[in-house]
Amino acid sequence: MPYKLQYFNARGTAEPIRYLLKYGKINFEDVRIESSDWPKIKATMPMGQMPILECDGKRFFQSVAICRFLAKKVGLAGSNELENLEIDSIADTVVDLRLKIMAVSFGPQDKKAEGMKTLKEETVPFFLSKLNAIAEENNGHLACKKLTWADFYFAAFVIMFQFGAQEGEKVWEKYPALKKVKENVENIDEIKKWIAVRPVTDL
Amino acid sequence: MPYKLQYFNARGTAEPIRYLLKYGKINFEDVRIESSDWPKIKATMPMGQMPILECDGKRFFQSVAICRFLAKKVGLAGSNELENLEIDSIADTVVDLRLKIMAVSFGPQDKKAEGMKTLKEETVPFFLSKLNAIAEENNGHLACKKLTWADFYFAAFVIMFQFGAQEGEKVWEKYPALKKVKENVENIDEIKKWIAVRPVTDL
Repeated sequence: MPYKLQYFNARGTAEPIRYLLKYGKINFEDVRIESSDWPKIKATMPMGQMPILECDGKRFFQSVAICRFLAKKVGLAGSNELENLEIDSIADTVVDLRLKIMAVSFGPQDKKAEGMKTLKEETVPFFLSKLNAIAEENNGHLACKKLTWADFYFAAFVIMFQFGAQEGEKVWEKYPALKKVKENVENIDEIKKWIAVRPVTDL
Repeated sequence: MPYKLQYFNARGTAEPIRYLLKYGKINFEDVRIESSDWPKIKATMPMGQMPILECDGKRFFQSVAICRFLAKKVGLAGSNELENLEIDSIADTVVDLRLKIMAVSFGPQDKKAEGMKTLKEETVPFFLSKLNAIAEENNGHLACKKLTWADFYFAAFVIMFQFGAQEGEKVWEKYPALKKVKENVENIDEIKKWIAVRPVTDL
């Protein structure tokens, strides 16, 4: 089954999928669509969105759903349904934070300064301190006291949370358990190799 | 395992959970928090959000994750991981639409008229026509050509999509396959009984 992943030339919501494919040593075509080509391609996409994972002529959409599917293939899902619930609730919490950051970043220009202030002073610290407490209880993981796709999903978005906090790498000093989650993923051989060679993009 | 569900006195993101519990004839305490009490309760919640499903002293958060977990218990999940991917991608698409409607409804007042216009003329018709085409292919279901929790997740939010279209019941005339999805769920004995007795709320 050869996989084809279609997304913009960015990490974004495709990056956790790339991490999982790399972790599982699953070959895939990493197709990156230029923004200028997107308007004409958008209409051909199942839900007008990317990423799309194509496999055996079928096209799958929704990045979190794709991650969950791949996680089961590569051994990063829970070992029972209660563990899967724990993992899923963390992944969707990361989505919540991501969407709050996106709403400000890509929202109306006249609300941006106010929105960034709320993000920096309230939203991002609220979420990251909650997640940090969970990572502390789970020995440097976000669920089930072990490496799961919840860790991958978080680690693939760290650049965004740093952006939200506007303090670059320093943000992690305040959240040492989350720093461990990030490092636990980034120190995996296959992920380290991927980070070293992946296209350098802003987002 | 006695379940306790905590949410506002509203359907909202708790309603698909209530549908699944009712469908499975699982007893639960349907705790409804008054909005005036929420500020002091918020700080005691795992992620500052509801719904919360409590069971054996553990508190679970994130409504979609809870639905997926319950769906497996009540026989509304997929029969393999490809089917689960299909179901999950539909549920998250319904979430996308819900969030777009919420962003306008609860967003800045000075952007509301413009936002409602976009919702009514573009966003809601785009999503509902895509989902209607899927429901047509799947014989009145949203995934896997059979009744799954994707149907429940959609059906529990129909009031919101009608609101987005501002046309009440009439919106379904344009989307006959989605009307079937809604009716397939609402005609299930346990759901019909629940709809007849549930508290009447605006949302």
